[in-house]
Amino acid sequence: MTVFSYQALYNFTESVFLAMGCSAADATTATKVLIAADLRGIDSHGVARLSGYVRLWEAGRINATPNIHVVHETPSTAVVDGGAGLGLVVAPYAMQIAIDKAKQVGTGWVSVKNSNHFGIAGYHAMMALEHDMIGMAMTNASALVAPTFSSEKMLGTNPIAVAIPAGNEPPFVADMATTTAANGKLEILQRKNADAPLGWVQDAKGNDVTDANILKKGGALLPLGSDREHGSHKGYALGSIVDIFSAVLSGGSYGPWAPPFPAYIPLPQNMPGEGLGHFFGAMRIDAFRPAQDFKSNMDHWIQRFRNATPINPAQKVLIPGDPEREAHTARMQTGIPIVEPVVLDLKEVGARFGIQL
Amino acid sequence: MTVFSYQALYNFTESVFLAMGCSAADATTATKVLIAADLRGIDSHGVARLSGYVRLWEAGRINATPNIHVVHETPSTAVVDGGAGLGLVVAPYAMQIAIDKAKQVGTGWVSVKNSNHFGIAGYHAMMALEHDMIGMAMTNASALVAPTFSSEKMLGTNPIAVAIPAGNEPPFVADMATTTAANGKLEILQRKNADAPLGWVQDAKGNDVTDANILKKGGALLPLGSDREHGSHKGYALGSIVDIFSAVLSGGSYGPWAPPFPAYIPLPQNMPGEGLGHFFGAMRIDAFRPAQDFKSNMDHWIQRFRNATPINPAQKVLIPGDPEREAHTARMQTGIPIVEPVVLDLKEVGARFGIQL
Repeated sequence: MTVFSYQALYNFTESVFLAMGCSAADATTATKVLIAADLRGIDSHGVARLSGYVRLWEAGRINATPNIHVVHETPSTAVVDGGAGLGLVVAPYAMQIAIDKAKQVGTGWVSVKNSNHFGIAGYHAMMALEHDMIGMAMTNASALVAPTFSSEKMLGTNPIAVAIPAGNEPPFVADMATTTAANGKLEILQRKNADAPLGWVQDAKGNDVTDANILKKGGALLPLGSDREHGSHKGYALGSIVDIFSAVLSGGSYGPWAPPFPAYIPLPQNMPGEGLGHFFGAMRIDAFRPAQDFKSNMDHWIQRFRNATPINPAQKVLIPGDPEREAHTARMQTGIPIVEPVVLDLKEVGARFGIQL
Repeated sequence: MTVFSYQALYNFTESVFLAMGCSAADATTATKVLIAADLRGIDSHGVARLSGYVRLWEAGRINATPNIHVVHETPSTAVVDGGAGLGLVVAPYAMQIAIDKAKQVGTGWVSVKNSNHFGIAGYHAMMALEHDMIGMAMTNASALVAPTFSSEKMLGTNPIAVAIPAGNEPPFVADMATTTAANGKLEILQRKNADAPLGWVQDAKGNDVTDANILKKGGALLPLGSDREHGSHKGYALGSIVDIFSAVLSGGSYGPWAPPFPAYIPLPQNMPGEGLGHFFGAMRIDAFRPAQDFKSNMDHWIQRFRNATPINPAQKVLIPGDPEREAHTARMQTGIPIVEPVVLDLKEVGARFGIQL
């Protein structure tokens, strides 16, 4: 484990994106989005993925100077073609369109095709907060998840993020994979050589197992709910809704045809659409009721839930976004711990471009 | 168990709503919405609740001739005051506004306050389908659910429904409580004197238990995910989002202050808003891409998922909405089975108004 300052990781990452040929503005955006994950404690989606983006670029599957453009629009909607660019750049572009439309007609909804992985969904949803808007972001991803009754991987971990402004309280920020556990949590267990709890994964035949390495052996992550008796059909439905809003509504590549993140895995045959898909929403609070009234009620909501009777007095009830905000504050102060395999990986990427970490 | 024809239940229910003083149009709407639950096999939300609506009306908490009206609007949004009317009538009114706005500017989003229980969320979401729109519906409800780490009930079962049109295939219709199991499933176990699986409920202190009657003893339903290790914080976040979109955005009464359905339970003290809240959305498909292209991709999506490799060849992978659609077809043909306690309850309601079942 090595601890890096935010600024050190920022400078390194921005240099890598610039070396890939990104414009200065795009390199800045991509860096901010990527490192937001490390700051918020979602280590699987931050600089740990930087080498993956570089390899996709080397493989010609990411365009560093994409032609990102609106394909079709109405007053409250748009479809954006991401030009095979970095999702880290495409997503803020599309979310900004949603925000601009919300300014005009109350809400804005943007579906995106021909993109790539966009970092943490929460970053994009949170862009709405400073405008007194509710923000939403979701994305499809390559298939790691088996629907209820299926032994075949059909869906990505397909996250949903919703950011809701409050007044004096910090905002409500939910950012969740639609699986029982995010893939990043499985990777942590793999590094520790530890077992996964029952209900996280199944083997290639669909049996419940605890092997944290089972995905490499044909196994699958389970939808939120784990099994039919505990509502896995609901997690499967949520992941499907994300897939359809992100990729069917935009003309992206959906379900088991979503393009894989590892560049060594070939693209699926007969892809029914272009690239990965995302979906963004922005709703202006005062398109419903005065923002001050809403925020005052949100403060009241948050305070009431925070003070719900705890099962264990030592563990108070949390508001979605609390752990990530606390990680952000701590890591800005004391730095961002990076595990050694990722440090080595970053150094390799740096060496590729002659950039020092 | 007695089996009734759709028409017999329809005529009886409509007569009850007319006897309560509903207009002919409102009685028709309320009846269609209520019995849609029985047809779709969601027995807990159909005529089993008719006496509950009548008792709320007797208690002055439902107004049979409500002044339902728009409080505020923008081109893509509205807030509706339900006038303390039947949710079964308020919800289709509000969903129609969402559809009308989607016709104009691509999408429509309506938050509702001062309403009551609205039957099954799926009915309202499905109103969008015939317009080649995606429909969404959600509602808050009285607190039965304990957030992660809480022994206190803070949220309702807060369902989310999303209906998505296809071409030759039937539509995708997800309609789910944001809990591990809907309260109706617990009621079925109560009638059978059977235990609940671990992960559905907890006791008053927050211990995992299997007692299907535990809610009457201070216990709570668990959010989708069951426990922290299996993602209950995600189910808690989803239920919270439904609560906020439905009741904080509209000015309804949220969280533990949501008004209870049983008329014998007094209204909460210091309610922060008016009545129950709902949230509806409609997105015109061709505000994103040509409807025929989308529907053709949806047919492809549905066929691919239906043919995912099953764990057990005898149980194929289902598409959300399949079981409910099959129940609808079967019950229109062979009738709707009603358990005896509900038959007795309906007969009592009928006697109250001099209506024969």
